[in-house]
Amino acid sequence: MKKKNQEYLARLRKAMADHHIELCIISGTDPHQSELPPAHWRGREWLTGFLSENGTNGTAVVTADTALCWTDSRYFIQAEEQLAGTGFAMMKEDGPEAVDLVDWVTEHTNAGQTVGIDGMTFSVAWVQRLEQELNDNGVKLDTDFPMFDYIYPDRPARPLNKLFVHDEKIVAETVDSKVARTLEAVKSELANAVLISSLDDIAWVTNLRTANDICFSPMFVAFLYLDESRRVLIIDDAKLTPEVRKHLDTYNIETIPYDDVKEFVSKLPKETRLLIDPQKTARGIYDHIGCTCVFGGDAVAKLKSIKNDTMITNLATAMEKDGVALTRFFMSVEKEYPQGGLTEMKLAHRLRDMRLTDPTCVDESFASIVGWNAHGAIVHYEPSDATDVAITGDGLLLVDSGGQYMTGTTDITRTVALGNPTPEQKHDFTLVMKGHIALSCAVFPSGTTGHQLDVLARQFLWKEGKAYYHGTGHGVGYFINCHEGPQSIRLNANPTPLEPGMITSNEPGLYLEGKYGIRCENLIVTEKCMTTEFGEFLHFKPMTLFPFDVRLFDLDIMTPEEIKWVNDYHAEVRARLTPLLTPQEAEWLKEKTKAITK
Amino acid sequence: MKKKNQEYLARLRKAMADHHIELCIISGTDPHQSELPPAHWRGREWLTGFLSENGTNGTAVVTADTALCWTDSRYFIQAEEQLAGTGFAMMKEDGPEAVDLVDWVTEHTNAGQTVGIDGMTFSVAWVQRLEQELNDNGVKLDTDFPMFDYIYPDRPARPLNKLFVHDEKIVAETVDSKVARTLEAVKSELANAVLISSLDDIAWVTNLRTANDICFSPMFVAFLYLDESRRVLIIDDAKLTPEVRKHLDTYNIETIPYDDVKEFVSKLPKETRLLIDPQKTARGIYDHIGCTCVFGGDAVAKLKSIKNDTMITNLATAMEKDGVALTRFFMSVEKEYPQGGLTEMKLAHRLRDMRLTDPTCVDESFASIVGWNAHGAIVHYEPSDATDVAITGDGLLLVDSGGQYMTGTTDITRTVALGNPTPEQKHDFTLVMKGHIALSCAVFPSGTTGHQLDVLARQFLWKEGKAYYHGTGHGVGYFINCHEGPQSIRLNANPTPLEPGMITSNEPGLYLEGKYGIRCENLIVTEKCMTTEFGEFLHFKPMTLFPFDVRLFDLDIMTPEEIKWVNDYHAEVRARLTPLLTPQEAEWLKEKTKAITK
Repeated sequence: MKKKNQEYLARLRKAMADHHIELCIISGTDPHQSELPPAHWRGREWLTGFLSENGTNGTAVVTADTALCWTDSRYFIQAEEQLAGTGFAMMKEDGPEAVDLVDWVTEHTNAGQTVGIDGMTFSVAWVQRLEQELNDNGVKLDTDFPMFDYIYPDRPARPLNKLFVHDEKIVAETVDSKVARTLEAVKSELANAVLISSLDDIAWVTNLRTANDICFSPMFVAFLYLDESRRVLIIDDAKLTPEVRKHLDTYNIETIPYDDVKEFVSKLPKETRLLIDPQKTARGIYDHIGCTCVFGGDAVAKLKSIKNDTMITNLATAMEKDGVALTRFFMSVEKEYPQGGLTEMKLAHRLRDMRLTDPTCVDESFASIVGWNAHGAIVHYEPSDATDVAITGDGLLLVDSGGQYMTGTTDITRTVALGNPTPEQKHDFTLVMKGHIALSCAVFPSGTTGHQLDVLARQFLWKEGKAYYHGTGHGVGYFINCHEGPQSIRLNANPTPLEPGMITSNEPGLYLEGKYGIRCENLIVTEKCMTTEFGEFLHFKPMTLFPFDVRLFDLDIMTPEEIKWVNDYHAEVRARLTPLLTPQEAEWLKEKTKAITK
Repeated sequence: MKKKNQEYLARLRKAMADHHIELCIISGTDPHQSELPPAHWRGREWLTGFLSENGTNGTAVVTADTALCWTDSRYFIQAEEQLAGTGFAMMKEDGPEAVDLVDWVTEHTNAGQTVGIDGMTFSVAWVQRLEQELNDNGVKLDTDFPMFDYIYPDRPARPLNKLFVHDEKIVAETVDSKVARTLEAVKSELANAVLISSLDDIAWVTNLRTANDICFSPMFVAFLYLDESRRVLIIDDAKLTPEVRKHLDTYNIETIPYDDVKEFVSKLPKETRLLIDPQKTARGIYDHIGCTCVFGGDAVAKLKSIKNDTMITNLATAMEKDGVALTRFFMSVEKEYPQGGLTEMKLAHRLRDMRLTDPTCVDESFASIVGWNAHGAIVHYEPSDATDVAITGDGLLLVDSGGQYMTGTTDITRTVALGNPTPEQKHDFTLVMKGHIALSCAVFPSGTTGHQLDVLARQFLWKEGKAYYHGTGHGVGYFINCHEGPQSIRLNANPTPLEPGMITSNEPGLYLEGKYGIRCENLIVTEKCMTTEFGEFLHFKPMTLFPFDVRLFDLDIMTPEEIKWVNDYHAEVRARLTPLLTPQEAEWLKEKTKAITK
């Protein structure tokens, strides 16, 4: 079967010939290094036919006679299928058969040839190694080859969705304050100005949001420049409303057109020492910077990760709303399950609808994972028409979902039994929960990092030769990205300490291929716990409000403290959600939160 | 009070003037970067009067009008006292008043001046930054200023102790095998030869040892060069016996005089790619290397850290002997304590004598720490005439000690109650033991590093706002250094995984200033535990054999599993030691290992 991608490929090869380019590398992301780029920047998907969702997980390489698309192990099966007949072959980024893309490009080019990329879609850091290797071999790198301008006439426009102001009462911090704190961080890197490309950072600093620019995240496409005397938002004018213009005026933020970003950076005063994060800044912009560049980390990430007391209080209301939606959802599942007719897709849509009933819930925070039995064991499973199954018989249902509420972002996983759970399922569920509880109850000195705590969540599984291979916790944004840094709770070393106000997930799991998956996830906030002669100690408080399935606990392997934790948590869930529920719902929740006892 | 050090300082200043040196930096260590250098290289102590024991913790700087000695916080009080009247002032290496030595030197020298060091006593890595900063300022660095040759006429000679062969039956590996494995590691760094400066590495590769070159470690002063065709031990001829010469002949190891090391490296064939570890190799040697240098890690450290089954079996016998010595020691303490008259010093000497009764025990593995009550809370306390106290009244006695047995190195800490322990002491002891037990019982996937497990030992203390600030575990050598790498169990990230055959300490503690100190230390060996669908899992087995004080357990805060661990461990100690004890000793041990029950 020959697909139309072969024609696109022919167009690309012609454009390459016209521009004297022997090898071309096509990025899957945008000038902001977004994980889920807008359609405008999904040219790599259009060209190759491989729809990776995650933009950073698909990079194509084309020469006169070869066309390849690299992806990682999560997508091997899907990519192989979708690339069939397109003229592209799949290459593996990881695993035992991995081929390094830069090595491949280096080996397949000769001195005097030219490699072309669209520099706007690759980060400064990514290009650095490529350029070095090519230079060593006498190969030229052309970073200004915007291939889709030549070959993709019906390319979708950049998103022009209107912005809105994220009420400052919710976040209890003005733009002035955020700019001042950002510039303080910039100065600590010995710079005096910053160009911010990350969309979540820009949304945070400006207290502005939009819908639909980026899937599942209310961020908008723009750049932001800050120094002591100028604040410049580089954005398509069509995205601004009168309300937004007023907000920008209030905070002395000028705007210039998005397309002028290169010209803007080229004309910065010579004395500017511009901080850029080489991981997040496009090489195509870097090429035009006319002042001194300071390479540094993300100046905003740390500030953004720490939520103030007002934000935490407001997030608590989002958690209540989320708990109500989940109560209605799981209650309906339990009621309808015996009659048959439920499928993973149906439930994913239902959960979305139930969340969006709340007017402050703007979107889901990611595509819901609803995995029944064997599907629950596929860590990144997302039900689709091709994979959907009916939820019948006995088993475990894993539901990982979240909402973008104006007062904060939620992310919760629950694993529930439908029908009769087996002793093995209860045992495994309890091992996962023991880890979840151990991490949730940790007390630790200020300065402790997530990798220093991670084993607490894994220790009980490990004792039985069981393990999960994903991180235990990621940072969570505040009505921005559901995944954010800089903190994490993983085995991998991460130097960022856990600080009061950080919201992190706590999500140990266990995946038995072909059988079932278990994951138990709450969001937890870091708080001060006590100060002693040994210094300041911190601990976590769960923010998420929904019961764990009491039918799945194996009390024989739980300590009295663990049982107490479950009962205390469930009492809190019941107390907080009951006032928001109908009497029938409250009755259901009461049953679901009844105390477990030996 | 004017001390004779002022005269030495005057001599140094004259030598500096004679050699046109404006500022001179004096190292506290030797050409092997030893932690406890032989007297020959303790010129810095002789010059400044500050006896830091640990060579690397005292670096002096002298100019025409200033004389300073840097040290770390463990030595601030001692250094201040000992430097009084010497003409030297103390500088702090760490803490809030720290001054960076290189920064100070850079700020106090001007273009055209010369800084002098004895390059044989500073590592390549240490000098690198200094040289860069000085170069930037137009200051010259003279790395060939062996100041003590000019000013220290009665300097002790290099140690000329005789070597002996460490029986290959004990370590079950020939020198040929060790050389082959080392060269394999060298090749993986893309080098074809290696110069080894670390004395523990040289002792390991050659299966040779000595006594008294280095305090507490049976290593000897030498360098070792290896490539595919030559094995060269660079050593003072007087250290070789006929037996050792025969051993060297057997393994085709040539010897050349220690003083010829510079000439040797200067004449290496041009095609040699010589691996050196910049942290362990003297700059004075590097300056003479006449071939290509490859900077890499310690090629031997990883090999040395993994003990084979025979070594582990032999270490078990050392542990039995150590347990017998400790039984006799603690039995005598308990017997004599009511009469008074015991002091920390007396006990330290007694413990040494009791260990050395065994003919295979060559030395202590470090200076015993015997700390009574408040002294136990000083982590690096070592009793001296000035600090010695009588052991009377109620309290806790902390004893950290070890032996250099031919069949392995031991290191054990026990904290015991004399008189009546308080509930607080029992509570704290039990918190420490809960951490010790949790780490000892850990099961973890292959590839897990020590920093990923460390929190297991700290978690119970942290819950109560208590903490200790040292590492939980260090690697332990095999009849070599008591402290070795590359693995460790600490909060600090360390990329080296724990592998089967590694011996590591497990020593959580708690220190209440002015009150008491608690530390509970066993050596543990990493072993394979099981292989499941999730991969290979490892665990630890305790090697040390001596009971923890059963009077100090607070059973109310212990789980049944923890109590079982204590009882099982004590049963093993009893079973292994009893056959080696007199009936009275066996009776005493039986009482000390009686089962604890709620």
